Amino acid sequence: MKLYDHPTAPNPRRVRVFLAEKDIEVERVSVDLQAGEHKTPEFLQKNMNGQIPVLELDDGTCISESIAICRYFEALHPDPSLFGTTAKDIARIEMHMRRIELVLGRNIGVSWVNGAVVAQIAKGRFTQIPEAKTQSDAAVNAYYERLDGELANRAMIAGDDYSAADISAMCVIDFAEQLVNLKPDDGLSNLARWRKQVGSRPSASA
Amino acid sequence: MKLYDHPTAPNPRRVRVFLAEKDIEVERVSVDLQAGEHKTPEFLQKNMNGQIPVLELDDGTCISESIAICRYFEALHPDPSLFGTTAKDIARIEMHMRRIELVLGRNIGVSWVNGAVVAQIAKGRFTQIPEAKTQSDAAVNAYYERLDGELANRAMIAGDDYSAADISAMCVIDFAEQLVNLKPDDGLSNLARWRKQVGSRPSASA
Repeated sequence: MKLYDHPTAPNPRRVRVFLAEKDIEVERVSVDLQAGEHKTPEFLQKNMNGQIPVLELDDGTCISESIAICRYFEALHPDPSLFGTTAKDIARIEMHMRRIELVLGRNIGVSWVNGAVVAQIAKGRFTQIPEAKTQSDAAVNAYYERLDGELANRAMIAGDDYSAADISAMCVIDFAEQLVNLKPDDGLSNLARWRKQVGSRPSASA
Repeated sequence: MKLYDHPTAPNPRRVRVFLAEKDIEVERVSVDLQAGEHKTPEFLQKNMNGQIPVLELDDGTCISESIAICRYFEALHPDPSLFGTTAKDIARIEMHMRRIELVLGRNIGVSWVNGAVVAQIAKGRFTQIPEAKTQSDAAVNAYYERLDGELANRAMIAGDDYSAADISAMCVIDFAEQLVNLKPDDGLSNLARWRKQVGSRPSASA
């Protein structure tokens, strides 16, 4: 089994953190994104989306989409559970994780593809729309404020316990800060408290 | 238990189709979207995103995000499984469902918020960016072609069997055709074959 990976991309990091929380070791293959290795015909056979991470099983089956890879390992190694075990917990974690991805993550993605770093490293691959970035930057900052309010009432993103929703949120917010110039305002103290907590888990540096 | 619903919105339909496939009946409450009932303080208590569907349990717990609601019912009523039972099936279905949502569904959403119907029914709620719609329309049509190619090699979206990925794909494509003016080209015969198959299941009219 092999995990196609890259040290700074946010989605492979989600899988690495997830595996670290479950204490699972998987052989990793680093994909050279700058050289476009994820867009070669050989790699597109593994994932036609041309993205990492990809988990290649010993029988040749390739699984892409980081959460799909995480669910594969959750099914094989259910403890500790990161997607919930009761119907209500499963639903609650999925709800919060999807909000993080579909609202926060999506807007961070829009700011990223229309931003300065992409303009430099992927010249010509995207037609950038500055107005879209203005909208998404505002949406990201509004979501940070909302999360800060939510985290006044609970320890973690989806409730009292650490879950896959925390992994998703940590990875997208760290990415936004480091590569999209969208750092949460220092005044958002609940969000800062949560970031410190999840960021100091040993898995965070996986 | 109550499901907050609307007859023509695509996300509540995903839940209705899912419930019909599992032969589960749930009391439904229709939310008047045109009157903005989903944006009232009372409704925002149920889902701060101001969106439907929402499943309200008898203990007052509210679950939003259609797939989170579906996972709640999958956990309580595992047969027939629509999210898979083995690690590999779970991962495969999640992978295909996420591709449908994160690429196709996301672009249909961009075409929708920047399109003619929204300009009419939600005047002023969105600042529309025509250039974003040009990009997303092209991405949707490219995805239809890709899906057509995939469906040359397998019966359903995620493999041989009907799954939650088919429900997601059917609901977003029907929505795109009916309300976003993005009908798949008639020449895409594999996609047309699949649409006919899933659309003729009794659940499709739920």
